[in-house]
Amino acid sequence: MHLENVVIELSKKASSAARKLAIVPTHVKDEALKKSANNLRQKEATLLGANEDDVRRGRSNGLSTAMLDRLTLTKQRIEDMAEGLERIAVLPDPVEETISTVKRPNGLEIKHVRVPLGVVGIIYESRPNVTADAAGLCVKAGNAVILKGGSEAFKTNGAIVDALDDGFREAGLPDGVAQLVRSTDRRAVSLLLEQDRFVDVIIPRGGEELIREVTRSSSIPVIQHFSGLCHIYVDEYADVLKAIRLCMNAKVQRPWVCNAIENLLVHEAVAKSFLPDCVRQLEDNGVEVRGCDKVVRLVPHAKRAETKDWTTEYLDKILSIKIVDSIEEAIEFINSVGSGLADAIVSESYTRCRKFLREVDSATVYANASTRFTDGYEFGFGAEVGISTNRLHARGPMGLRELTTGKYVIYGDGQIRE
Amino acid sequence: MHLENVVIELSKKASSAARKLAIVPTHVKDEALKKSANNLRQKEATLLGANEDDVRRGRSNGLSTAMLDRLTLTKQRIEDMAEGLERIAVLPDPVEETISTVKRPNGLEIKHVRVPLGVVGIIYESRPNVTADAAGLCVKAGNAVILKGGSEAFKTNGAIVDALDDGFREAGLPDGVAQLVRSTDRRAVSLLLEQDRFVDVIIPRGGEELIREVTRSSSIPVIQHFSGLCHIYVDEYADVLKAIRLCMNAKVQRPWVCNAIENLLVHEAVAKSFLPDCVRQLEDNGVEVRGCDKVVRLVPHAKRAETKDWTTEYLDKILSIKIVDSIEEAIEFINSVGSGLADAIVSESYTRCRKFLREVDSATVYANASTRFTDGYEFGFGAEVGISTNRLHARGPMGLRELTTGKYVIYGDGQIRE
Repeated sequence: MHLENVVIELSKKASSAARKLAIVPTHVKDEALKKSANNLRQKEATLLGANEDDVRRGRSNGLSTAMLDRLTLTKQRIEDMAEGLERIAVLPDPVEETISTVKRPNGLEIKHVRVPLGVVGIIYESRPNVTADAAGLCVKAGNAVILKGGSEAFKTNGAIVDALDDGFREAGLPDGVAQLVRSTDRRAVSLLLEQDRFVDVIIPRGGEELIREVTRSSSIPVIQHFSGLCHIYVDEYADVLKAIRLCMNAKVQRPWVCNAIENLLVHEAVAKSFLPDCVRQLEDNGVEVRGCDKVVRLVPHAKRAETKDWTTEYLDKILSIKIVDSIEEAIEFINSVGSGLADAIVSESYTRCRKFLREVDSATVYANASTRFTDGYEFGFGAEVGISTNRLHARGPMGLRELTTGKYVIYGDGQIRE
Repeated sequence: MHLENVVIELSKKASSAARKLAIVPTHVKDEALKKSANNLRQKEATLLGANEDDVRRGRSNGLSTAMLDRLTLTKQRIEDMAEGLERIAVLPDPVEETISTVKRPNGLEIKHVRVPLGVVGIIYESRPNVTADAAGLCVKAGNAVILKGGSEAFKTNGAIVDALDDGFREAGLPDGVAQLVRSTDRRAVSLLLEQDRFVDVIIPRGGEELIREVTRSSSIPVIQHFSGLCHIYVDEYADVLKAIRLCMNAKVQRPWVCNAIENLLVHEAVAKSFLPDCVRQLEDNGVEVRGCDKVVRLVPHAKRAETKDWTTEYLDKILSIKIVDSIEEAIEFINSVGSGLADAIVSESYTRCRKFLREVDSATVYANASTRFTDGYEFGFGAEVGISTNRLHARGPMGLRELTTGKYVIYGDGQIRE
């Protein structure tokens, strides 16, 4: 079949499966997730074999060591995928959850409930565990999913979807709830992005370039997760020890994640008592510090920050530090150069905290806590579909609820409009 | 200035105004709305003069009588606009409303609050009252608004925005919260749709062609309001008198609105006792009935429905009627041909109602009430920004809350992530 027809047929099938899946009872979906988890374990040898082929091809195609590592399946990674599905199975089902109810003067009872979004398209790069994770989350929230993984994981993803699908069908889910676009042709992605009649939302998981490319060519709404350029602002009234602990955590614990900080802003009045100690601890942990003129004066061996340092997400042990005159300057700076993902103030002043929390326009704003908590699990969602930097539909960490939409159910007794 | 620069400057200004407006206290916004309402009244002569110019130009350009009527301002219509703004002023402010709060085991308190979307672009056709209404709703929800009206209302819209703007500035709102794209050049719309760095959402208000065109060329998310192809299904267990009353209301009261019904589905078992009476009443009220074969057999003078009748939103006194064998057939039909806006079942059976309400995939689903209630005011929102047929962000009638997004505010005491 022609590639275009393959993608259309698959999208149609997903759309029809989604309508059926939307009303499947929770216990059936949970059973399906558990069965597919067990299937992954039972098909371990098949999965490892398929993965070996991909890794061999990747190596001869010159994939980097880091990419090969991301691609490689192990027994442990298969077990992790299976356990991930089992964890999704025990989460509360968001479908038909009531958002609000209102009784109107004419007696109409209007209930706003959650219903599945429909068909979710996931476009992702090499890590094959996304296949099981994304499929599990989508299906739990009653959505059909179309997966398009990287071509380097072609066989691995195919084997994973086969294992999941067997489990889903065994439990009685409609055919086609989780499908993989089985093509390494690059046009497959653009064809998928044209299926706005059948696909309701696209979630790209990968680097900024992938997300930009998908957004540019999609006629379907895209939930984006762009870079995280996060800040801590250490206020004049900061508890200095607390501030050092928070900066260390936000920079050093996992510097390569989106909610780690890239810039540190320090109020002038606290710079002397805070910065030298903080910089020493950061440097002891391998962080390279780059500073504005004032910082360089205070910490003479620090490198001078260039313009691009303030707007670059290094995802590495590099931190740019700026001394500011006021909280207003800090807020203005964060709202201008930040990515609106996660920003924190450290201050014992009630008024300063309140001002920062209200005026910083980010998805997650913190008073006296590490930006590293911007995460679906840390927020208590029990899962993470991604972290949205969109303003519409979902903003910030996304759980199962963000994979649903609303529907108004209205109970009447013959009411007509006058 | 070059048109492109005009649009960019205006968008930048809106973006900067939005950030300031986001934290303006409710009472200041309400005062601004009241002042602008009074300004509309005081500038009555100016508005009528500008409108006269537009109407004269429209007449010589051959606008239809209907379009000229929509375009024409009267003293009453100006008063209606002013009262509309005053009604918005007394509505509750959605900004900083708490959506949910959770306390995490580590002591973090996470509050999910509503914040303004940012900059809203409204693209609309001739009716000039949209100018005041849209600006008022956007500003109340803390958003800056960019208005692009039809060129036939160029002077009228300009005069309205001038009057509003004076009121807004008098009350101390930041400069640029409500701006009009003052150009009749068609490229102005496409230029606006490219400003995704500054504009957060586009809401087109007008016909299907306008919405499709805007969606096609926009790099900014678009909230769509497509057609309403609504149904009533009269079940085997319907109360026949109730069913007739509901069908009459949903078809006859205002046949030209999106939540009026276009198709009526009737269960075979109730067709004989229900249809002849219902059709007679509809015809007495000027409705032309078109039916499937079975309907034509029962109501011999009825016209036979053609394929396109089932999928056409006539917005007129035309109703297509189909006899179905089962509720399953009705649900399948509605989910296939309907627009997912508003659909109703008439039945005294608990199980049938429950099935219909769960399985019909529409923004608003009714048991024993008229589809005509799909409306922001009837839902108790106090206002209506539009009715979204999108699945993401907002679905169904949109009030002020749908002009906001969320933000997570996290209160800590030095928590770090382990």
